[in-house]
Amino acid sequence: MFRYLFILLFFHIYSFSQSFDETESKIKSLYNFSLTQGKSYDWLEHLSNQVGSRLSGSLGAERAVEWAKQELENLKLDKVWIEPVMVPKWVRGNFEYASIESSTGNSINVSVCALGGSIATPSNGIRAQVIEIRSIEELKKLGKKEIQEKIVFFNSPMDPTEINTFLAYRKLVNLRRNGAKEATKYGAIAVVIRSLNLVNDDFPHTGSMSYGKTKLNQRIPALSISTNGANLLSSMIKLDPSLKFFIKQNCKNYPDVLSYNVIGEIEGYEYPKKIILIATHLDSWDLGDGSHDNGSGVVQSMEVLNNFKSLKIRPRHTIRVVLFMNNENSLSGSKEYLKNSIKKSENHLFALESDSGGFSPRGFSFDSSTQIFKKVKNWNQFFKPFFADNFYISDSGVDIKLFKSTGSVLSSLKTDSQKYFEYHNSAQDIFSKVNKRELELGSAAISSLVYLVDTFGL
Amino acid sequence: MFRYLFILLFFHIYSFSQSFDETESKIKSLYNFSLTQGKSYDWLEHLSNQVGSRLSGSLGAERAVEWAKQELENLKLDKVWIEPVMVPKWVRGNFEYASIESSTGNSINVSVCALGGSIATPSNGIRAQVIEIRSIEELKKLGKKEIQEKIVFFNSPMDPTEINTFLAYRKLVNLRRNGAKEATKYGAIAVVIRSLNLVNDDFPHTGSMSYGKTKLNQRIPALSISTNGANLLSSMIKLDPSLKFFIKQNCKNYPDVLSYNVIGEIEGYEYPKKIILIATHLDSWDLGDGSHDNGSGVVQSMEVLNNFKSLKIRPRHTIRVVLFMNNENSLSGSKEYLKNSIKKSENHLFALESDSGGFSPRGFSFDSSTQIFKKVKNWNQFFKPFFADNFYISDSGVDIKLFKSTGSVLSSLKTDSQKYFEYHNSAQDIFSKVNKRELELGSAAISSLVYLVDTFGL
Repeated sequence: MFRYLFILLFFHIYSFSQSFDETESKIKSLYNFSLTQGKSYDWLEHLSNQVGSRLSGSLGAERAVEWAKQELENLKLDKVWIEPVMVPKWVRGNFEYASIESSTGNSINVSVCALGGSIATPSNGIRAQVIEIRSIEELKKLGKKEIQEKIVFFNSPMDPTEINTFLAYRKLVNLRRNGAKEATKYGAIAVVIRSLNLVNDDFPHTGSMSYGKTKLNQRIPALSISTNGANLLSSMIKLDPSLKFFIKQNCKNYPDVLSYNVIGEIEGYEYPKKIILIATHLDSWDLGDGSHDNGSGVVQSMEVLNNFKSLKIRPRHTIRVVLFMNNENSLSGSKEYLKNSIKKSENHLFALESDSGGFSPRGFSFDSSTQIFKKVKNWNQFFKPFFADNFYISDSGVDIKLFKSTGSVLSSLKTDSQKYFEYHNSAQDIFSKVNKRELELGSAAISSLVYLVDTFGL
Repeated sequence: MFRYLFILLFFHIYSFSQSFDETESKIKSLYNFSLTQGKSYDWLEHLSNQVGSRLSGSLGAERAVEWAKQELENLKLDKVWIEPVMVPKWVRGNFEYASIESSTGNSINVSVCALGGSIATPSNGIRAQVIEIRSIEELKKLGKKEIQEKIVFFNSPMDPTEINTFLAYRKLVNLRRNGAKEATKYGAIAVVIRSLNLVNDDFPHTGSMSYGKTKLNQRIPALSISTNGANLLSSMIKLDPSLKFFIKQNCKNYPDVLSYNVIGEIEGYEYPKKIILIATHLDSWDLGDGSHDNGSGVVQSMEVLNNFKSLKIRPRHTIRVVLFMNNENSLSGSKEYLKNSIKKSENHLFALESDSGGFSPRGFSFDSSTQIFKKVKNWNQFFKPFFADNFYISDSGVDIKLFKSTGSVLSSLKTDSQKYFEYHNSAQDIFSKVNKRELELGSAAISSLVYLVDTFGL
């Protein structure tokens, strides 16, 4: 009955173009192709295992640019190019080291890693008392007297009762981003952040941090400690609040270096000047190989173009994929792209992002007017057979949020997020954690949404 | 707006009992408890790794009965008991062996396993030519002339474009169940079935088969070959249709043995005679440890009782969990339970099953009148925050389908099925393939549905 009503409504709105059944069957063919002849999984295998991690400014990043450009060229698109952009270069150096010293000569190693952008410790490390707190507010409450000369240990676990794990992450990510900047105001000599990880294990999770306007000589090292390490440190502090913690890292910030966004497009036959953009970041953190964050999004985005080419779908609008260099420790790539795009007076009708990991797709979020959302919400009917029909209004992801200012409609692929933060920004984010079918279903989902926007407009 | 309308409607229908917010908050507390203090994951660890596989009639099955009874008793329920039932006993014997012989002295091993219920090969194996076909219809078309004295190789791959993987499975499972029975009519000397597996790997997948009324002396051995093995065999047959295939297995059927269903309940304070049943199977196949099929369903079902006890929810109806012995190679457990239940004139208001693996829950199927479905469909609003709101009408699973005759409303937990058939009935179905959060979300989902049925009736 609902289906019947929907079909009626659909015909009413779209009678000018093509039938419900035709649309349904085209979407099915996009799914079938992605699941049986798509390139996503092979591409991801190469990007993850042959190129590997690709932090901006690294050799891996340069190899990823070459690889992506070559693969897009192999698709025989109308145009493939790279766009120069200056990006930060931060290098981890030797692996980090930390130990809990309960008494002289008695120490236990725990797993830590430097946060991206952090400075090194002095070459012989830092050995100091630890103050365990939960929040930046607590820092303020305790004040200089309790904080100075100490290592601040932010030990806030992610909330396991938050079903959308991205929300649990967002509640705490400020500690990682700004913990060092805040703690230094009270005389702390380093900060150690509990890894943003929903399970207890020995893998520290990195991520970006910033000193903001903190003077160079007031900057302090920032590390992430594994959840197991954090639990151990916390319970040992309870036994002996005066215990010492030793940390050592020799990461380093270098001047910005030249890198590239990678761009490919199929020109629209009806509206070549109106662009449907699929935008995502090509760079990754250096731990693991960035298979979920965001190798998956990269190959899924490229697969949209492969799907259109292979199935000989001629788009009315220009379908463009842009792979940004450097989302992980600034947004250089997307800023540069947008700047140039505005110069060229380009019109981005729609910007779509896949950056929630290669997990089973659940639907899409949209950042648009209510009126436009009302229209696209109707399309979720087409995604019901694929269990990806959860369409809702929400802020968009970081890769595309800058496009908001240009009036584009923004959208993000949403996946099942239960496992995302077990892997995110850690050595666990590797190819074997991505399931082929789930990855391919994501490729098919974004291809289908792009197809709908192209066919029916916004 | 929709939410507002729903709340109005909800109050209208349920004003006699409790408010929307109260219900919402109770369900949230069931989720919170399952995710933070539940026993599901620890239970599953024990059942999978300490008890292990538990094919009916095996020592593992007996240990599983003891374990489940003990754990239910630990919950201090109103009643825990075991119900005797005679179950089939089939034993795999030594691991099976198969090789493709392209020429004398040149052979390649491939992974196979006996199907549950199959007879052995002669002790020196079977060496014969292979005929590769896709279906039972093809068997009939080829006839005795092409089939006799040969090993029939059913090589039908699961359809990767079927998004609900259970549907892809159902399309082919008849080959496994009845392939031997059919092939023997045309003089085949054994059947080898391509594993019902969506990926290419070296793990053969077992499962039940039946000879039906085939005379004892006309029964032929039935094996499953891994998907990689099937692909290899198929391509080698193309090169040399006369190649020989060698198979050897020494599995055996024994007379039925005594085992038990395990049952525990909390008595309802208002309708003690009306039973809300959570029913699932305790036995598993012997390859792997049955973590997804169906250790997950077992611990999730037990968790419903733990949730009610721990959160001090006194149910209006009797909440009963029954763990059936022997779903995998007959339905002895559920048949026996139902027989006894009818004798005792028990009234099962509702029967709920979790047997789709410990994956991320998506919703529930219902097997009921349209009128009742209309009522329960409204409840899916409560599952939206947990992404488990896909409620639909469908046939129920095997564990509870017999209850249809008693007029009970039937329901099955539905999970994300993308990976299920990579593991199902194979050595891949092990504890490490179950994600803690996803398992716990399933426990919470079925607890919540039971809570709603108990609170608002059907």
